[in-house]
Formats: sequence, structure tokens, C-alpha cells
Amino acid sequence: MRKKSIRTKGCNTHNKEKTAGKNKSAIYRHRADYSWKGIKDESYKPVGGGWQDIVRKVIIGSHGESTHFHLRYFEIMPGGFSTLERHRHEHVVICVRGKGRILIGEKLHRVDFLDTVYISPNTIHQLTNPFDEPFGFFCIVNAKRDKPKLIKS
Amino acid sequence: MRKKSIRTKGCNTHNKEKTAGKNKSAIYRHRADYSWKGIKDESYKPVGGGWQDIVRKVIIGSHGESTHFHLRYFEIMPGGFSTLERHRHEHVVICVRGKGRILIGEKLHRVDFLDTVYISPNTIHQLTNPFDEPFGFFCIVNAKRDKPKLIKS
Repeated sequence: MRKKSIRTKGCNTHNKEKTAGKNKSAIYRHRADYSWKGIKDESYKPVGGGWQDIVRKVIIGSHGESTHFHLRYFEIMPGGFSTLERHRHEHVVICVRGKGRILIGEKLHRVDFLDTVYISPNTIHQLTNPFDEPFGFFCIVNAKRDKPKLIKS
Repeated sequence: MRKKSIRTKGCNTHNKEKTAGKNKSAIYRHRADYSWKGIKDESYKPVGGGWQDIVRKVIIGSHGESTHFHLRYFEIMPGGFSTLERHRHEHVVICVRGKGRILIGEKLHRVDFLDTVYISPNTIHQLTNPFDEPFGFFCIVNAKRDKPKLIKS
């Protein structure tokens, strides 16, 4: 039992083919540039507009993990922004790189390193980066969640 | 609707009495010393031994939030360690202060800044700090979870 819980090639690397659906323990090593070994860059949203210059990395949630939540890392380049949206599911945002702004309802807040934000259900929100360095943050969400509704600004 | 989702005294501070059970948006400001405004230190575990020099801070999960997960921050002082344990629920650990060691099954791994660990169900694990500075990490768990079973080492 104990040996099976560790992947055979060690925990230092991620190999999607070997772990998909297998729910194994794993370590995703940070590369010192806000990327993680074995985690690829994805488009922020697959289609549509209303956003600019964001990258998404799904760290926990797309490799067969059984958690009731997903951990993603997003990075917004200077001048970039996420969609103005609302949905029933909550967001927990933890700033880990640079700084940024978060609109929650009608109020704009600045967030810095390790500031942690809880966005409650159905609250309109948007993340922006008006600064001159990348704004990187973890965003934790329920694994089962509704689709965001985009708001026209 | 939009105004109600923001607490009346702004998002900069946390007031447990006003928000308990109310599921409001909130910002927990990091104080630059790995503490958060409005989040108190707690004992790592309420009773029992098998652990040493750890502080727990529940950032998301004890203020009426409806998330299916809880976000906690733990800090292990030099020489400290968590209990050797296993349980059905998973752990996601993100190192954010110093460095530490994680035993996963029978293998010991060193973790540094932003290294992210997935500990799968029923895997024996323990976090230790053999280094000379505090080892701080976020630990995300399902909101509904089983009680850990302590392992005699």
C-alpha cells in the first residue's frame, strides 16, 4: 500500500500519461520563474474576448486527483485583465507574484504578496494588472462548479 | 445584490462576529511576517502528542465560507514536526516560507518556495523542519474530511 502511493519514477517529475486517473501523490517543483515542472501553460479561457494577456496553469485538478477543489496559477501581464464575470462558485485568490487589482462588486482593491481574497458566490469580479511587472496568483475553486456569466462593462 | 456581497466596513479587515455564517467576500491582508490581519494563531492539533512546534492559521473555512475546501497556513519552527499520519482525504501543500521536508509513504522529499505537493488518499505522511528558519506552507483540504489516524513511528 505505501509503495503504491508514490509514483514509481519518484515525485520530482510529472508524467501525465502515467498518472492520469491514477490519483497518485506527486511533487510539482517550482522552477524559480513561476512555472512548475510538468505543468503546462494554457489559454486563460478557451474562446471569447473580454480578457487580455493571461496565462493559466492547472497545478492540481487535471491529473486524476480526487480533491473536491482545483488549484490553478494565473499570471496577468502588465496591462492585462480577466473577464468581468459572476458565477455561483467561490474564488480563493492568493497573490504570489508582483501585485494587482481586484474588483469585487463595485470596489477596487490592490493586492500584494500573500494577500488572500475570498470572492463569495454571485459576486461580480475582475482581476487586472495596471503595474509594470507580472501579477501572479493562485486561484482555488470547487472541482464541480458552474460556468461563469460574462458581464458587459 | 452587488453591494451586499461586500462587507460594510470594507474588505481590509476581518471581523468574525459580523461575518460568521454570512458568506461575504473578504480580503485577508498579509502582514509581511506570514500572519494575516484577522486570522488568529491556533494550536496545530487540539490534543495529543506526536508533533512539535507548529502553528495553524485557518484563512478560509472558519468564517462561514461555502467553499468545498479549506485553506490553512501552517508554520513549523526549526526542529518541529507534524504527526505521522494517514487519512482518506487528500492534502495539497504549497511551500511559501523557508524550506522543509515531507515524508510521503517511505520517501523523504525536500520542498522549497512554491513547490506544490499532492498527497493522495491513505498515504502516510509527515512534515518536518530540520533547517534553521521557519518552514511555512499552505495546506488545502476538502471541507468535509475524515479524521487523521496517527501512525506510531
